[in-house]
Amino acid sequence: MITFKEAYKKVVSHRLDLGSEMVPLINSHGRVLASSIVADRDFPPFNRATKDGIAINYSALESGSTRLKIEGVASAGMYQQQLKSSTTCLEVMTGAVVPLGTDTVIMYEHLTIKDGWANIEKEVTKGQNIHYKGSDETQGAVLLQQGKRIGSADIGVMASVGAAMVSVKALPTVCAIATGNELVAVENIPEPHQIRKSNSITLQVALSKLGIAATALHLKDDKKAIEEGLQKALQENDVLLLSGGVSKGKFDFIPEVMDALGVEKVFHRVAQRPGKPFWFGVHRTYKTVIFSFPGNPVSTFANYHLYFLPWLHTSLEIPVETKFVSLVSPLTIQAPLTRFIQVETYWENARLCAKPVTENGSGDLTSLAKADGFICLEPREASYEVGEVVKFVATR
Amino acid sequence: MITFKEAYKKVVSHRLDLGSEMVPLINSHGRVLASSIVADRDFPPFNRATKDGIAINYSALESGSTRLKIEGVASAGMYQQQLKSSTTCLEVMTGAVVPLGTDTVIMYEHLTIKDGWANIEKEVTKGQNIHYKGSDETQGAVLLQQGKRIGSADIGVMASVGAAMVSVKALPTVCAIATGNELVAVENIPEPHQIRKSNSITLQVALSKLGIAATALHLKDDKKAIEEGLQKALQENDVLLLSGGVSKGKFDFIPEVMDALGVEKVFHRVAQRPGKPFWFGVHRTYKTVIFSFPGNPVSTFANYHLYFLPWLHTSLEIPVETKFVSLVSPLTIQAPLTRFIQVETYWENARLCAKPVTENGSGDLTSLAKADGFICLEPREASYEVGEVVKFVATR
Repeated sequence: MITFKEAYKKVVSHRLDLGSEMVPLINSHGRVLASSIVADRDFPPFNRATKDGIAINYSALESGSTRLKIEGVASAGMYQQQLKSSTTCLEVMTGAVVPLGTDTVIMYEHLTIKDGWANIEKEVTKGQNIHYKGSDETQGAVLLQQGKRIGSADIGVMASVGAAMVSVKALPTVCAIATGNELVAVENIPEPHQIRKSNSITLQVALSKLGIAATALHLKDDKKAIEEGLQKALQENDVLLLSGGVSKGKFDFIPEVMDALGVEKVFHRVAQRPGKPFWFGVHRTYKTVIFSFPGNPVSTFANYHLYFLPWLHTSLEIPVETKFVSLVSPLTIQAPLTRFIQVETYWENARLCAKPVTENGSGDLTSLAKADGFICLEPREASYEVGEVVKFVATR
Repeated sequence: MITFKEAYKKVVSHRLDLGSEMVPLINSHGRVLASSIVADRDFPPFNRATKDGIAINYSALESGSTRLKIEGVASAGMYQQQLKSSTTCLEVMTGAVVPLGTDTVIMYEHLTIKDGWANIEKEVTKGQNIHYKGSDETQGAVLLQQGKRIGSADIGVMASVGAAMVSVKALPTVCAIATGNELVAVENIPEPHQIRKSNSITLQVALSKLGIAATALHLKDDKKAIEEGLQKALQENDVLLLSGGVSKGKFDFIPEVMDALGVEKVFHRVAQRPGKPFWFGVHRTYKTVIFSFPGNPVSTFANYHLYFLPWLHTSLEIPVETKFVSLVSPLTIQAPLTRFIQVETYWENARLCAKPVTENGSGDLTSLAKADGFICLEPREASYEVGEVVKFVATR
C-alpha cells in the first residue's frame, strides 16, 4: 500500500501527449489552445470614435471658433470620410472611423445643433473620445497564449481576429466501465438483490462537462467476458475508468485479466479513505491508461476528482488549480490514512468556509449530492482546528 | 438615468415563468429540477456486505466456535442466499445481499481459509461490515429537492432511483442580435473600416454553457430591416440580447423601433461604467424580455453577467450566488457611477484576492480575456482600501 502523495505522483507522471485538433470556434469553450492567437491587425484597427457627436480638427477651436458648419455624417461601417475644411466638422457615430483631417470628437451632450451648425458648449480636450488604432494591441501581438483554457471572453477575441476554426489540444477517448452482476440499467426495475448502474453515467456526465464524449460499457463478473471486453476497450481508448472489481472478492477478476492483457500494474491500494482499493496501470503497447476505482459511488467519485482530473490537466499541460477552505469544525485524522471528507462550502466575506456533510460511509451515494467537494486531510497527531486552512477539491 | 441597484431590481422583477420539460438524465447536468427526486426503495435496498470475506451468525462465536465450515458463496447480483446451519458460514462478496441467517461479515484479511473451512483470527463485532437496508435513506424520502441545480453527483442519485428522464425547468429561447453596418462575419476579411462580429458569438457560447442554444441575428443600420428582424425575433423568443444601437447616434434606431413594435421601455441608461447606455424593455403581448446592451464588447460582457444571469436565476427560482473578494490595491470611485472593474483573482489561503487587470476602456476586448470577473464598487468619498472585501461577479 502506498501513500496518497506517492500514488498521485505516479498517476500524473503517466501523462499522455494527445496532440491537437481543429474545432469550430463556437465549440471551443473550455478547450486548451494548442497555438497562440495573434492579432491579425491593430486593435482597434483604426482610430475609432467612442461617442456619437461631431469630429473636428482641434485647430478650429484654437483659432477661436466654437460654431462649426456640419459637412456630413461619418457612421460606423463607412469608409473613412474626409473633412474638407479645418473650420467645419462631420457628424460621427460611435464605432466609425475618425475622419481624415479630424483629431477630436465632441459628444452630442456637449453640443447644440441647429440649421446644420454645431455649437460647442463645453470645454474640449484635443484628441478626446478617440480609441486610437493599435492602442489595445498592435498587429502581430499575442492575444491569447498557447496553453490557455478558453473562456467565453476569449471567444470574442478569437472572433475578432477571424479564428473561425481553432487549434486546441485533443482530448482523450475514454470508456467508463461498470463491473458487477448486481447492476441493471437505469431504465430497468431492479430485483431485490440488484441495484441500478450509477457510477458509469455519473462519470460520463462529469466527462461531458469537459467536452469528452465517453462511451460506457458494462462487464459482468465472468472472466471471459471481462477479457474480451477489456481487450477491445484497451485498443480503442486512451483512458479506461473502471468502477468495481478490484477488491479481494472471488469475482474481482480485473487485476489478473489486466495482467494477462499486457497492462502493467503501477500500483494497487492507497492509504486513503475513501478510495483505498484503487488500482492504476498502463498498457505497455497501446499506452492506454487505466484508472480502476473501487465500486462504491463515493470512492469512484472521489478518485475521479483526486486522480483523473489532475492527470487530465497534466496531459493537457494546464495547471492543476489548488483551492483552499477554512474549517468551521475541528477534525481528528488518525494514521495511516489520508482522509477526504465531504463538505458543503459557503462564503464568509472573501473566505470560503467548509462544513462536513452527514454521511454514512463510502456506499452512501446520497451524501455526495449534499457536498460541494472534499477536503484533504493528512493524518497527524494534533486535531485540525476551527479556522485552519486546508486543501479543497471541488466536485460541482 | 437610474442607479445600478434600481436597474437590477427592475430587471429581476420581470422574471418569466418558463414551465418545465422532460430531458434524458445524461443531458440534465446544470439544469434545475422541476420535481423532487424520491427514493423508490430503501438506500441501500438490502443489507449489503461491505467487505469480501464470510458471513456468519454471530451466535456461532458466542458458543465458542472460531472455525466454521464454508457452505457456499453469496456474490453481488445473486438472490439472497440462506445459511443452512448457525455453525457454518457462507463466503460473501462486497455488494452482495447478506445471507438469511447471518448477521455479521468478516473480511478475508482477518481469516485463513483451508480445505473449505474458515479460521477466524481477529476479534469480531456483532453486525460488522454490513451497510444496513435503509440506513442512508428510506423509501419515499426526498433525495433531491425540486429547485436544485443538477451537479454530477446528483446524476448518480437519479440513476439509482431509475430517473432515466428528468423533469427540469425549461430554459428561455434566446436570440443574440448584433447591430451595425461595420460588422462582418468571423470568417470574412474585414475592410479597413470594418470589424468582425464578436459580441453575438461570445453571448452564444456563454449561453451554451447554460444549456441554451441561442440563435444569432445581424441587423444592419436600416430602420426597415431592423423593424422586420425585431418583429420576427420578438415573436419567436423569450429573450432578446442585443448589442449596439442604443446610444445617441443617428442610426441608433433600436429604441424607437422597439416602441413602434409594442415593446415597453422599462429603462434606458444606468449610472454605471462600463455599460451605461443599457436599454431594457418588455413586449406587452408576447412577454419577450429585451436586454439591449451597448455595443462595446466590455459593456456587453459586463451587462450579460450583471443583469441577464441574475434575471435567468430569478426566472429559474435558484439563488443568485454572491461572491466576495479581498482587494490587493486601493481604488477610488467618484460619484455618480457604480464601477465594475475587471480583475484577476487568486487564492491566498482560503481567501480569494482580486487584482485589477490593465485595460484600455470599454472597447478593449483583449482586456476581458485577462480577467476572471468584475468587482462591483459603489461610488463613495473614501477610497477602497487594501484588504477590503467587495462584491465579485465571476465571468469564467
